[in-house]
Amino acid sequence: MVYMDLNSDVGESFGRWTLGDDTAMFQSVSSANVACGFHAGDPTVIRRTCREAVQAGVMIGAHVGYRDLSGFGRRFVDIDPSELADDIVYQIGALQALAATEGARVRYVKPHGGLYNAIVSHTAQARAVVDAVKSIDASLPILGLPGSEVLRLAEAAGLRAVSEAFADRAYNPDGTLVSRSLPGAVLHDPAQVAEHVLRMAADSAIRTVDGSILRINADSICVHGDSPGAVAMAVAVRAALSDAGIDIRAFA
Amino acid sequence: MVYMDLNSDVGESFGRWTLGDDTAMFQSVSSANVACGFHAGDPTVIRRTCREAVQAGVMIGAHVGYRDLSGFGRRFVDIDPSELADDIVYQIGALQALAATEGARVRYVKPHGGLYNAIVSHTAQARAVVDAVKSIDASLPILGLPGSEVLRLAEAAGLRAVSEAFADRAYNPDGTLVSRSLPGAVLHDPAQVAEHVLRMAADSAIRTVDGSILRINADSICVHGDSPGAVAMAVAVRAALSDAGIDIRAFA
Amino acid sequence: MVYMDLNSDVGESFGRWTLGDDTAMFQSVSSANVACGFHAGDPTVIRRTCREAVQAGVMIGAHVGYRDLSGFGRRFVDIDPSELADDIVYQIGALQALAATEGARVRYVKPHGGLYNAIVSHTAQARAVVDAVKSIDASLPILGLPGSEVLRLAEAAGLRAVSEAFADRAYNPDGTLVSRSLPGAVLHDPAQVAEHVLRMAADSAIRTVDGSILRINADSICVHGDSPGAVAMAVAVRAALSDAGIDIRAFA
Amino acid sequence: MVYMDLNSDVGESFGRWTLGDDTAMFQSVSSANVACGFHAGDPTVIRRTCREAVQAGVMIGAHVGYRDLSGFGRRFVDIDPSELADDIVYQIGALQALAATEGARVRYVKPHGGLYNAIVSHTAQARAVVDAVKSIDASLPILGLPGSEVLRLAEAAGLRAVSEAFADRAYNPDGTLVSRSLPGAVLHDPAQVAEHVLRMAADSAIRTVDGSILRINADSICVHGDSPGAVAMAVAVRAALSDAGIDIRAFA
Repeated sequence: MVYMDLNSDVGESFGRWTLGDDTAMFQSVSSANVACGFHAGDPTVIRRTCREAVQAGVMIGAHVGYRDLSGFGRRFVDIDPSELADDIVYQIGALQALAATEGARVRYVKPHGGLYNAIVSHTAQARAVVDAVKSIDASLPILGLPGSEVLRLAEAAGLRAVSEAFADRAYNPDGTLVSRSLPGAVLHDPAQVAEHVLRMAADSAIRTVDGSILRINADSICVHGDSPGAVAMAVAVRAALSDAGIDIRAFA
Repeated sequence: MVYMDLNSDVGESFGRWTLGDDTAMFQSVSSANVACGFHAGDPTVIRRTCREAVQAGVMIGAHVGYRDLSGFGRRFVDIDPSELADDIVYQIGALQALAATEGARVRYVKPHGGLYNAIVSHTAQARAVVDAVKSIDASLPILGLPGSEVLRLAEAAGLRAVSEAFADRAYNPDGTLVSRSLPGAVLHDPAQVAEHVLRMAADSAIRTVDGSILRINADSICVHGDSPGAVAMAVAVRAALSDAGIDIRAFA
Repeated sequence: MVYMDLNSDVGESFGRWTLGDDTAMFQSVSSANVACGFHAGDPTVIRRTCREAVQAGVMIGAHVGYRDLSGFGRRFVDIDPSELADDIVYQIGALQALAATEGARVRYVKPHGGLYNAIVSHTAQARAVVDAVKSIDASLPILGLPGSEVLRLAEAAGLRAVSEAFADRAYNPDGTLVSRSLPGAVLHDPAQVAEHVLRMAADSAIRTVDGSILRINADSICVHGDSPGAVAMAVAVRAALSDAGIDIRAFA
Repeated sequence: MVYMDLNSDVGESFGRWTLGDDTAMFQSVSSANVACGFHAGDPTVIRRTCREAVQAGVMIGAHVGYRDLSGFGRRFVDIDPSELADDIVYQIGALQALAATEGARVRYVKPHGGLYNAIVSHTAQARAVVDAVKSIDASLPILGLPGSEVLRLAEAAGLRAVSEAFADRAYNPDGTLVSRSLPGAVLHDPAQVAEHVLRMAADSAIRTVDGSILRINADSICVHGDSPGAVAMAVAVRAALSDAGIDIRAFA
């Protein structure tokens, strides 16, 4: 392997509220998960985000979520799967149109927050996501957790399933993420994150919380964009990979 | 002239709330102004509406509005024009994707409610609508009031401007609609409406409230879908036109 | 027992959308579960509903729900309990102010839809509801399902717990409602509903789906207001109780 | 005069989005205009803001606005006045309940953004605000621009009208604010702001953009909380007044 994709959540501002420094993140990542208005991102934010992604040569993906502005899409919502599929088509279509006005196309779909977590195991909602993507454009890959229901169903449906790993998250031996409610769930030390990321990209492996080594084939690594120090972390991750001879390049 | 388009607002239900009888209206009209989620219409409603329009052979248009669910898009909102343009692109894109899943395409754009009224004279917002439509697809016609700023700017921008008349509204001698706050603004008598519509379609004329005759070139006639008796009125309008040898046919 | 409370969900219109016939329902019920704006009910609807309740001598309760207009509050939302408590305080306060402008007071709290169902067993959310109500006014009763976590916790916290039964729902032998996804879950025959209600009120008993008799102490009976035939059903329920010498009277 | 009130907009965060540094502002101001959820502020933010205001000894007011999260309440909305009044009652009631859980009471009402600007001259909306406040609690003062319709109508209705001046805004000779679209509309130099504020508080005067002196009787001075440097500016204003022997004290 001589290249790796770095993806980050962007376009998460809304109206008067700003979140993250997308302009800076675009200097480090190759893929942009653009919020589509249901959990974050108003149309003006989305359009500006697409413009900046185009200028920076970053690939645009639809970061679709539950309709939940006040909870930022992080709360599980027990929505009827067919209504969820419609919500997702709506969001992708809205982003497609705004991206097109900036000369870009939506190249993949990544579920966000509570939806992302739900469809690791919630088969009906996972199928709704796959159905929605397939009904719009069967050439759109879905980005998700390795081993998740959504990736399994995506492949079964003939869609490309793209596995991602997290630069700053600790892993359990079974490949799930350590819950954010536990200490050590999020890595803050750039050196530790760089080592984590290098192992993922160069060795297809993760050192889990119990010290064991887990095999993982990640096509993309997610770097978070909305925390203090996010930009510095993304810069460190990119530098670590580059120094190891690994190019940062969009997966599609 | 041997044909006329009939358009009606549809897809105005939202979640638990139902408005109008779209299924019945589709038996009478040739063009469907489908709400896009900002003033009415959730994704599931929109998709079902597109499906029924396709089944009935009715053309689909984007009924774009202000972001105002509680006011049903009827309140003027002094939104920045460039933000308005982005809101409109978002809505059209969302509808395009949902329509596509039902094998249909969005064929025109009709602004709704407070926005419709504003851009009769509000140049900056009218230009925002034109800019938004042009940025998505310059082949999409805009439906509006004859003589309005939005139609004038649409033509100046190279877009097709489609003029519409209202089957059940009384007109002032200057071609504006009699304000709903005045008596007689809305016609309820099917015979009177039929005469009104026949004069529009066959003679390109309207008898205004002072009895004078106004010349009008309407490419489409709007029949309302959300009032009691709406379906019967639409049936009566269609029958009156058909009896006079005028086919009901989408304008595009 | 010589009296029984009848409660119904009202104030569920929103903006342009009308749901139910509250004016008619107020002729039959003694308690009004008024939607508070998060799942249904805008401020103007709420105020008008309070006015009509006052005129009809009907007691006002706060029908609090998840923030979920598009799902009508029927979807479970995995919201943080302390955020849920704040949402509930907000809704009750808003209703209190609008009720006060009509000379009324909020007399009880009834959770709605997905929240109602969740707190039958979800202890943390049930506690959030109890905490919220207690923090506003410890004299406000909470209306819920007999045997539910929320009523258990309400009593433990010193609040009055009011048990309700459903006029038109079939019961399982364990006292839970037959799922709406199963046939026979909802009773449509007025005679059957009248018998069901009379047994609840006069005998403190329910005949369950397997024919067994379940003991129940209901302080209130819920009649649904938003289905076709709802008004007729409410009239029938009231008549059946009156004919049996049972007065319809608010529980507080 | 030996004291002056300083007010600032707070509680303008929403869900995941943070705006301003309320904790720091509370060290300088005596009155807190707390957003009520329609333009900013979710229930959890509101409650936390009230708690911090109580801890800092700062008076709580209701910062009511149009229902416009995406526009932050800054867009004029041509809402029906009676619906506006209901929206305002709803917001105040919600804040009252949340404040009460923190042991506080709402002491005044200040309209926000687009509504604030509209009711300088829009009589019907100004009357709606006055009616709403009076219907809840006729002892609640309304904070507004000197000479505005809303303050005139408040006084006519027997409410206390509280005039405010702006610490960092330039004034036209007629007492209106210099439009934000013009250069020099907002003062950024702490020394200039301190001089501006001292003249207001000590001399009841403002030096306008043409150098003339305008008489003004401000009961409160507004310091902005959401701009970079806001906290430093508030500290500077407070220090300037204190140094001149003027106490910072809530107006009620």
